[in-house]
Order: sequence, then C-alpha cells, then structure tokens
Amino acid sequence: MNTYYENLKTHIDKYSALNMALTLFNWDSSTEAPKDATELTSKYIGILSENLYNTLINDDVEGLIEKLKAADDLTVEEKAIVRKTSEMFDDIRYIPADEFSAYQALLAKSDAIWAKAKAENDYNSFAPVLKEIIDYNKKFASYKAKARGYEGPLYDILLDDYEKGFTTQVLDEFFSRLKATIVPLVKRAVKNNHLIDKDFNYLSYDVEKQAEISRKLAEHIGFDFNRGVIKTSVHPFTTNLHNKDVRITTAYKKNNLESAMFSTIHEGGHALYEMHVSDDFTGTPASYISMGMHESQSRLFENNLGRSEAFWKPLYPKLKEAYPEQLKDVTLEHFIHAINKSVPNLIRTEADELTYCLHIMVRYEIEKMIFSGEEIDIYKLPEIWNDKYEEYLGIRPESDAQGILQDIHWAIGSIGYFPSYAIGTAIAAQIYAHLQKVMPLDEYLSSGNLQPVNDYLKKNLHKYAGSKTTKELLEGLMGEDFNPEYYINYLKEKYTKLYNL
Amino acid sequence: MNTYYENLKTHIDKYSALNMALTLFNWDSSTEAPKDATELTSKYIGILSENLYNTLINDDVEGLIEKLKAADDLTVEEKAIVRKTSEMFDDIRYIPADEFSAYQALLAKSDAIWAKAKAENDYNSFAPVLKEIIDYNKKFASYKAKARGYEGPLYDILLDDYEKGFTTQVLDEFFSRLKATIVPLVKRAVKNNHLIDKDFNYLSYDVEKQAEISRKLAEHIGFDFNRGVIKTSVHPFTTNLHNKDVRITTAYKKNNLESAMFSTIHEGGHALYEMHVSDDFTGTPASYISMGMHESQSRLFENNLGRSEAFWKPLYPKLKEAYPEQLKDVTLEHFIHAINKSVPNLIRTEADELTYCLHIMVRYEIEKMIFSGEEIDIYKLPEIWNDKYEEYLGIRPESDAQGILQDIHWAIGSIGYFPSYAIGTAIAAQIYAHLQKVMPLDEYLSSGNLQPVNDYLKKNLHKYAGSKTTKELLEGLMGEDFNPEYYINYLKEKYTKLYNL
Repeated sequence: MNTYYENLKTHIDKYSALNMALTLFNWDSSTEAPKDATELTSKYIGILSENLYNTLINDDVEGLIEKLKAADDLTVEEKAIVRKTSEMFDDIRYIPADEFSAYQALLAKSDAIWAKAKAENDYNSFAPVLKEIIDYNKKFASYKAKARGYEGPLYDILLDDYEKGFTTQVLDEFFSRLKATIVPLVKRAVKNNHLIDKDFNYLSYDVEKQAEISRKLAEHIGFDFNRGVIKTSVHPFTTNLHNKDVRITTAYKKNNLESAMFSTIHEGGHALYEMHVSDDFTGTPASYISMGMHESQSRLFENNLGRSEAFWKPLYPKLKEAYPEQLKDVTLEHFIHAINKSVPNLIRTEADELTYCLHIMVRYEIEKMIFSGEEIDIYKLPEIWNDKYEEYLGIRPESDAQGILQDIHWAIGSIGYFPSYAIGTAIAAQIYAHLQKVMPLDEYLSSGNLQPVNDYLKKNLHKYAGSKTTKELLEGLMGEDFNPEYYINYLKEKYTKLYNL
Repeated sequence: MNTYYENLKTHIDKYSALNMALTLFNWDSSTEAPKDATELTSKYIGILSENLYNTLINDDVEGLIEKLKAADDLTVEEKAIVRKTSEMFDDIRYIPADEFSAYQALLAKSDAIWAKAKAENDYNSFAPVLKEIIDYNKKFASYKAKARGYEGPLYDILLDDYEKGFTTQVLDEFFSRLKATIVPLVKRAVKNNHLIDKDFNYLSYDVEKQAEISRKLAEHIGFDFNRGVIKTSVHPFTTNLHNKDVRITTAYKKNNLESAMFSTIHEGGHALYEMHVSDDFTGTPASYISMGMHESQSRLFENNLGRSEAFWKPLYPKLKEAYPEQLKDVTLEHFIHAINKSVPNLIRTEADELTYCLHIMVRYEIEKMIFSGEEIDIYKLPEIWNDKYEEYLGIRPESDAQGILQDIHWAIGSIGYFPSYAIGTAIAAQIYAHLQKVMPLDEYLSSGNLQPVNDYLKKNLHKYAGSKTTKELLEGLMGEDFNPEYYINYLKEKYTKLYNL
C-alpha cells in the first residue's frame, strides 16, 4: 500500500471516529438523553466538533492529499477515497477557522430559537438569526466560488453541497417542467377528491400494534435488524455509524394509520442504502452519499414501491388481521386509493406524492431569490411564502408556524438542501421505471419477495455510496443520466388513472 | 483566573469530551447497538481511546501541572481539580505508550474470549489471556511502585487505583475480622433457614409491571428523570456523562420479584451520587468518585435503607396492589423476612446481604496471592477458587462458569477492584449508623420521605465527588475515618434477630 495513503487513512480513521461519536450524541439526544442534559452536553459536543475540524484541516492532510493526487499506484477504491477527502477538505479549508467556529456557535443556539419561534408562532424572533445564517452562507459560498474560480450564481455553490451537478440552470428547467404539468394536474385532481374515501385512516389505531407493524414492514423491505435499530423520536430520521450500524426512527400517531407505516418505509429505504455500502468505503468520506441520491432510495421504497398495489397484495391481509374492526369494510383497492389520495396541505412532511414537489418548489424559489444578489427584506419572507403556497397549492397558511417556520433546515444552516428532496423524488421514478424493465418487479412485489430488488440495487448502486458522482451512478445503473421526464410521466399516468381524469 | 489553569482546563475539557463519547459508546453498545456492529465500532472506539491518552499524556499538560502545583492563587475547587488531574497523569505517564496500546488491544478482545469461555464452561481457553492481563498489571504496577518509591506489596498499587488508602494491611485486618464473625454467623443462620418462607418471590411477575415498579422505586429514592434515564441491559450498571445525564439499567426476571427491584435501588444509589456532584467538579477529574465510596451509596440504598421495614412500610401496600394474587398471603413482616433471607450461593451478584462479602474475600485472597511474588500456575486457580467457596460458604461450584469465570472484571483488566465492593458495603453500614444518629431516619422512611436523606448526603458527601480523599470525606461527614466495626455489628444484630439466633 502507498505509504502516503496509509498516513492519510490514519487521519481519516480519526476523523471518522470523532464523526461517529458526534452521530451517536445526535442519535442519543433525539431519542434518549434526559431533558436537563442538553446544555452541558452541547458544550462537549462543541469541543468534539472543533476537534473534528482540526483532524481534517491541517498541513499534514493537505500535503498528503497533494501527493496522493499525483500517485499512480492507488486502487480504484483508494482513488475515490482520496478524491472525496480532498473535496471535503476543499469545502472547509477556504473558511477561516474563526468564522467557522463563530458560525458553529450560532448554529448551536439557532435551532432552539427556531423551535421557540415556531411554538409561539413568532417569525420575527427568528428572523434576525435567519439573517445571520444567510449572511454566513453567502460569505462562505463566495469564498468557495472564488477559490474554485466559479462565476455562476452563488446559490449553485450551496446546491453543490447537497447534490453536485444540480445547478440553478438544471433545477430551473426541472421545476418549470414540474410547474407546467403538476400544478394543473393537482387542480384537476382536487375536484375529484370526493371519489376517494380515506376516513378509515383516521380511526383509532393502537400504537403498540403500529410499532409491531412498522418493524415487520422494515423487515419486509430488507432492513437487517442485526445491523440496525428502530426507535421512536418526534421527527423520524435515519442515521448511521457505519454500514453495520444503521438506525431509523418513527413517530406513531394514534389517529393516523398510514403516517408511521410510510415513514418507516421511507427511513427504511435510506437505511437499506447505508447497509449496502461496500466495506471498502464505510468509515471514509467515500461513504457519504449525496442527499439527492439518498432521497431517491427512500422515495423509491416509500412511494413508487410502497404505495403500489403489488406491494400491498401480500401485506394487506395481515394489516386487516391486525385491525379487523377499523378495516372491515376496506378492500385492497380501496386502501390503495386512499394511501395515494392527493390533498394539498400546508405541511411538507405530510404532503402526498403528487403535491410533494410543489412544497420544494416554494422553498427553492425563495432560496434562489435570497441568493440572487439583491438585498432581501428578511421580514417580508413570510408573505412571499404564503403567496407561493396560494399560487401552487391553492391554500394559504394562516400562521407562520404552519408556513415558513415549519421546517428546521434553515435553522441548522441547511440552505440548498431542499431541492435534493425533489431531485431524489424524480430519480426514484426514473429508477422505478428501470427496475420494471430489468426484472419482473410486480411479480416480486406481489409475492412479497423484495430480495431481488435489494440485491440488484446493492450490486448496481448502493455499494458505491459516494465513491462516484450522481451522473456516474445513474449512468452505471441505467445507461442514462438524470431525466425528469420519467417522474412527470409517472405522476401523470398514476394520477390520471387514480382520479379518472 | 490563573492563565495556566485556564490552559489546563482546555485540556481537561477535551479529555472529558472524549471520555463522554467513550461512555456513550459503552452505554449504547450495552443497551442498543445492533449485534453485527460490534467489531467495526470497536475499531473506532480504539481510536478514540488512543486520542484520549494523547489528550492527557503530553508535555503541555505536564508543564501546566508542574506550574499549577506551585500556584498560590487557585480556589479550593481548582486545587482539587489540579491535584486529581495530576494523579491521573501520574497513573498513566509511567506506562510506555506502546505497552499501553498493546494492553488496550489485549483488553479489546479479552472480554469476548472470557464471555465465550464462560458460555462454554471452558476456563482453559481463557487462562492464557488472564495470564497476559496479570503480567501487564504486574509490570504496570511495578513501574508505578518504582516511580512512587513504594516498597510495600505490589498488590497495594492495584488496590490504590480503586480505593486509595486501602492497602493489603488495612484489608487483611478488615477481612480477618469479617471472617471471624460472619463465617460462623452464616453457618448458624443456614440452619434456621426453614423459618423463612420466600417461595412467593419466585412466582410469575409480569415484566412490564416490574419495569413500572422499578421506575417508581427510583423516583421514590430521589432519582431525577429530568437528569436521568433507566433502560434494560443484560447486566445492570450505572454510567454518566456528567451530573445532569446519569443513566442506569435494570434486568427484569419474570420469576424473581426482588431481583429487578433491588438492582434498581442499588444502581439508583450510584445514580444519586452522580446527580449530586457539584457543578464545579462535573466534567473534570475531580468528579471521579472512588469505587469504594461509590459502592457505599449503592449499598446504603439497596440494603441498609432498602431492605428495612421502615422503607417498605409506605411502599408495600402498593406492591401488593400491583400483584394482588401473588402477594395475597404475604404480610409486610413476611416480606421483610424474605428479602433479607440469607442463602449461601455461588454467584456474587445474586448474593444476599450477609454472605456478600465472603464472595469478595475469596477474590481478594486469590488476587493477593497472584501478586504476592511467587509464581502462580494459572491453571490451578479454579481449584483454589472452589476450595475457598467450600470453606467460607459451605458450597462448591460444579462448573467454572459458576465459579471463577462468573465475573467479567479480570477480563477487562479490573484487578484490585473487587475489594472496593466490600469496603463500600462496610462504609454503607457506618454511614447508616451515622444517619440514624443525626436524623429521625426511620420516621422519614416510614412516611416515604427520602428528601432529607438526599439533602443531607448531597450537602455533606455527594457534592464533593472525588475532590477529597475517602478519609477526608468520611471524617467530614461523620467525624470518624473508616471503621468496619459498624458493619460487623450491623450484620450481627440484624441476622441474630432475623434468625432468632
């Protein structure tokens, strides 16, 4: 093995060890830590984060990366790890350490300020913090743009953090096609909503039983409990220490049957991706999967597979057995219609499959505007937000808690993140179409056998994790780069049929 | 504030942050991590441990400690923190880094080898590893002895790690008194065992209900759920990140009512100590409580308080309500007799209050022998073990799994640890006598009010954590140093009465 590589690997291992510790602290604080621990624990998390920064950003690492870029005796896997480490290094190196620390300190308190503002429906108390976060992001993005010699829109730099290659140019094109197709489709569907009954979903469903069903659903799609954990938290999420320790959470609602089920399948899709990452990459920066690609797998399992009739054919009788009273008059067909019903609402995380990307479009347009260069009045954002909801979804938030304050992302500095949800959703539809071409997908689903799907995705996609670009991954899997046409066709076809349009 | 102190504090904070991460990993792997994660996670835990070593053992820290030892502008608290940091530094500095790492690597695998040997009742497969661990401990102890200019028994150096001041001289004296009193007392009690019925304890007790009772018991003794967590694990333990995040585990057994209850009170006693540590000390080496002192609080709550009639007076009616069938013929008096019944058995962790320290005596004598200087045949230890059980407890293990392999301690390098259990037990009795003197203890217990006990212990003992020596703590609390006479009298009195001797 190349000696420089061995040395770099030592740094990477140390970085990963600290990163795993931080992941574990985060998991713990969302699922278990006692209430009063937060303040003091945060102090030590801050110290570990600083430690993490120093592990990566130092002259040793810089020198090793330079030498390894010129090396010709690395394996394909090693090359990918060096490239990803170098990218990560470049992402942070241009930010002066003191500004990085000040920003981290801001983020350490901003989510609590957001949570309070949301609880009290008081956007103005969050606005100054949001302004600061935006300003830091502008500054950091301009450092990076300068270092890269990039002269396009500043927002591209932020988008790049979550899904490389998906610039405003690509996204403008993508969203304008979505807008042209889906906005009118939603308007037509809404008119036929009386055709689909979904009342049964809101009856009372024992939470213990829901938890059991979620476990079984996770197992059904391939979640390996020897390598994974399912727990409860307020907001469902997936996290992992490495490919043999992958964790998801679900939140159970007594009066909503589908909520926890699809949330589990969604997080389960994320989890499968992580469980399938190659041992060559786990514990290295090459294991970090882009947000769009990650979301493509959670959405594929949740929606394209998980809301199909074939998927529920072997499962629905068992669900009926679990809730004989509540589901006694509900046939499989009725159930499938209900779980696909589209009702425009205000909350992104509760959105149905058809309207979901419109929520993202609102956020994309606002983020793009903020970074467009013109000075934005931060206090005007709620009104802009509400206007857009009215335009695209036909509904207007009555409070900012249900509007601009609903998501945590901006409060934790994730700007440019939202579009990856839409990208992932479109990629999911593209991969779904591909799977139907290369295997008897419906047959597998109908017989409750998801092994071939998992095997195929693991072998042709998951194992590579972040060692390849999204373009390389998609072309390697399907012989075709990102193409949103599949998604648009999928929605048109599915909802035209569902609503007899 | 002294600038050197500020600098040292930065090192201490970093050390504590890493230490907390390791604590969290340990907690997680015992309570939650998926099965297949262990191997890979261990690798990263190893890296963090190395990091921890380097955070403390470096020239910077050494220089700062030297300067601060001579400083005259430190507060009492700061002085204690410097002293404890210096002690910790001295404990490790004499061990060469490569030997320390090799030993850590040995420990990383030795507990799995022990667990397998125990499961397969195959002492010989563990013996070579035990020999290696012993040899490392001998070597490390001799480094320390040399550095300290200590010429007494090598075993004293190991004892010192867990409870300073309790040398073989002190312990020989202590155990010989125990032996003279308790061994004959046990023999007499056993003959009267037919007088106490305990069959009800082994009926079937719903585990969910047991968990609820454990929670209530913890709350009853003062466990603060805003600063603490209770969870399930195979072996109960207590751990903490700091004074606002203290965690205990319990193991529930369907056919044993008392097991989880007293285990919860025991770990709860440990937890109260940690929750009451002063904010001045938490997150610093001055928060580290010696093993003997720690055990004194768990034993005080579990036995002296927790098995008393006054303690159960307000609680027993509720327990009966929870299990009306199982306890219908059991009066409070009957219950108290049963939970104090002494039956010599082979397993330390299941031992009753009377025989508990005899288990420790066996281990103490064997450890002392191993470190006495003469060459020991490692393969002869099981026989020596079994002979001692027969001599002191009147029973002989039929397998090594039930004998010398039962405890994990040696496998994780904890040699010299066991005596602190006995020391703690004796201190508990001494403190119990003191509490009875300074407050109407039985009255408080009978009315279910443990607040005054907690307040008193917090103010006069717990808050100091490891900032004082055991001698200072005991004298500060009671005006008297360690005195095992209280313990011997307590046992004699309690068991003479219980068994009508």
